[in-house]
Amino acid sequence: MAAEIERKFLLDAPPQGVEEHPSEAIAQGYLALDGDVEVRVRRAGERALLTVKAGGGRRRVEEEVEIGRERFEALWPLTAGRRIVKRRYRVPAADGLVFEVDLYEEELAGLVVAEVEFPDDAAANAFTTPDWLGREVTDDPRWKNQALALHGRPD
Amino acid sequence: MAAEIERKFLLDAPPQGVEEHPSEAIAQGYLALDGDVEVRVRRAGERALLTVKAGGGRRRVEEEVEIGRERFEALWPLTAGRRIVKRRYRVPAADGLVFEVDLYEEELAGLVVAEVEFPDDAAANAFTTPDWLGREVTDDPRWKNQALALHGRPD
Repeated sequence: MAAEIERKFLLDAPPQGVEEHPSEAIAQGYLALDGDVEVRVRRAGERALLTVKAGGGRRRVEEEVEIGRERFEALWPLTAGRRIVKRRYRVPAADGLVFEVDLYEEELAGLVVAEVEFPDDAAANAFTTPDWLGREVTDDPRWKNQALALHGRPD
Repeated sequence: MAAEIERKFLLDAPPQGVEEHPSEAIAQGYLALDGDVEVRVRRAGERALLTVKAGGGRRRVEEEVEIGRERFEALWPLTAGRRIVKRRYRVPAADGLVFEVDLYEEELAGLVVAEVEFPDDAAANAFTTPDWLGREVTDDPRWKNQALALHGRPD
């Protein structure tokens, strides 16, 4: 499996016209965090998943299972206080790249984050950051999903 | 949904001839325990399930999802140190009742527990305990699956 190369940027505001692009509602919440094991549910559009994630390096495990809308709704209340809710817009860019622009809602309303995924290291390095992208937060753990869900916006 | 009425007994040894009855291998392990949320995997015969359980009383949630053998095998290593492994025999008794006799293995080898489920309170109370059943532990939390998996045999 090829490694995923992603860069993440913090935006001051939604990009002009972002609402014209296709989007889907995403809700993700944590059911249980125990040692290095994370169990979460996620609804993206009509799809609902339960994911168990653990470890790093060679011990890394990530298993995802479709749970359907009804089971998602039953489990969602257990994630209270440990959620992110956002709308994700897919904005096409140069060189066939696509920006995923996330407009956060509820507790994190106002937060706008854009991610772009690259086919390889060379493409990631060659990438010229457009003006409308703000500060890069790729390597800052405070902007990861779990940290945002548990601790809110870091600044 | 009707309440489940179960009584649980501790046996000194496997009942005579128990191996002649149909049985299946059961392996159950805990992936995450977080507050009152419990996430576990269970394999019984060819069936593999992931279960999220939480709360008590009105807030009670229990959702079970089939995960298949392969996903079970991927998740099982995460339950190390928090497992029960046993073979369950189904032993028919009087009045159409069935004893589930569990012969534990691995860390709990030697432990033998029998459970019997009743259609209603009257049947549970009317039940005459056969000689081969030992001490009743129905209401002792130390003999619940999670307690046995985490803390081992209580005596």
